[in-house]
Amino acid sequence: MKILIIGGHGTIGKKVVSRFRDTDEVVVAGRTKGDFLVDIANGSSIETLFQKSGAFDAIICIAGEAKWANFNELDEEDYYIGIRSKLMGQVNLVRIGQNYLNSLGSITLCTGVLADDPVIKTASAAMVNGGVHSFVQAVALEMENDIRINVVSSGMVADAYEKYKDYFPGHNPIPMEKVVNGYVRSVKGKGNGEVIRIYD
Amino acid sequence: MKILIIGGHGTIGKKVVSRFRDTDEVVVAGRTKGDFLVDIANGSSIETLFQKSGAFDAIICIAGEAKWANFNELDEEDYYIGIRSKLMGQVNLVRIGQNYLNSLGSITLCTGVLADDPVIKTASAAMVNGGVHSFVQAVALEMENDIRINVVSSGMVADAYEKYKDYFPGHNPIPMEKVVNGYVRSVKGKGNGEVIRIYD
Repeated sequence: MKILIIGGHGTIGKKVVSRFRDTDEVVVAGRTKGDFLVDIANGSSIETLFQKSGAFDAIICIAGEAKWANFNELDEEDYYIGIRSKLMGQVNLVRIGQNYLNSLGSITLCTGVLADDPVIKTASAAMVNGGVHSFVQAVALEMENDIRINVVSSGMVADAYEKYKDYFPGHNPIPMEKVVNGYVRSVKGKGNGEVIRIYD
Repeated sequence: MKILIIGGHGTIGKKVVSRFRDTDEVVVAGRTKGDFLVDIANGSSIETLFQKSGAFDAIICIAGEAKWANFNELDEEDYYIGIRSKLMGQVNLVRIGQNYLNSLGSITLCTGVLADDPVIKTASAAMVNGGVHSFVQAVALEMENDIRINVVSSGMVADAYEKYKDYFPGHNPIPMEKVVNGYVRSVKGKGNGEVIRIYD
């Protein structure tokens, strides 16, 4: 398979890239480095990426940001950081990327445990993750050309645990191999419209 | 209790208004009629509403829209109809309304079964409903002054069933009394951060 991994240099992304490189042809895209540059918060940047890259058998997105802050410190515009990036960035990736997927291809998006089990400071981050979960379930009913779509939602991953553990009291770090397996299951399995929850 | 019901003239809203009028002081707001006019998609309209109305013991929102269309007919801007109204309209209502709630007050938002069990044409509508579910769970962790927040998510309500049943094949109409009870449970109960699912 020819697989595009957006965010392939991130904490999770680099482990996913490493796994798929064992078995597949991997193309990496990122905001600042990679085989192609892309900012998913910008629809025309996504379009340009695919015009340059051509078609894939699978698209994986492990990118997108949202602002973390106390609820009373989040102003309206702060929410739109996550809306334009994590939420609509991934929606636009599906809208545009479906046209650059081979038949029987797949799209795999990325969220996190916040959608189901938030912590403080995540009113905005949880919101956009939850939006992606429902979007994936809805759009899976309408994908054409036998294209599947899923989303991997993992708990705090082991490789980021030291940095973020104070934000997630009592959460158990998720082994990177389990997180990576979520992406493998989405791409190589037959599931469609699934929220693949990797929680502990 | 003094209760503000936004969208109190809608299909669900008028039944909720009728129930609370038996026991409480109800103020109705709506986009085109009511004791006060408000467009929740407009933050300054929300602010103006509360400056005129003063404080409440409970705020109920049964308003907000999103565009329904086939996925391949939804352009990027179409998603922002729901983002500005159903999603950020309700977020802004919480941001602003919390300042006009008496201690021990509550906020009750409104979504629908699409968030969990979408049908075709709802890529945008499901998305914003799911975003509200996660937002409510997250923000409940940070509300001050003992203010609670919940969201009522109901299936296709009986009073709208004839109009919309073809969009919801096999869904069972939810008796209006059950839907209204969801709002009563949120306002008069002690639950916080709950997604009150009224499904069948």
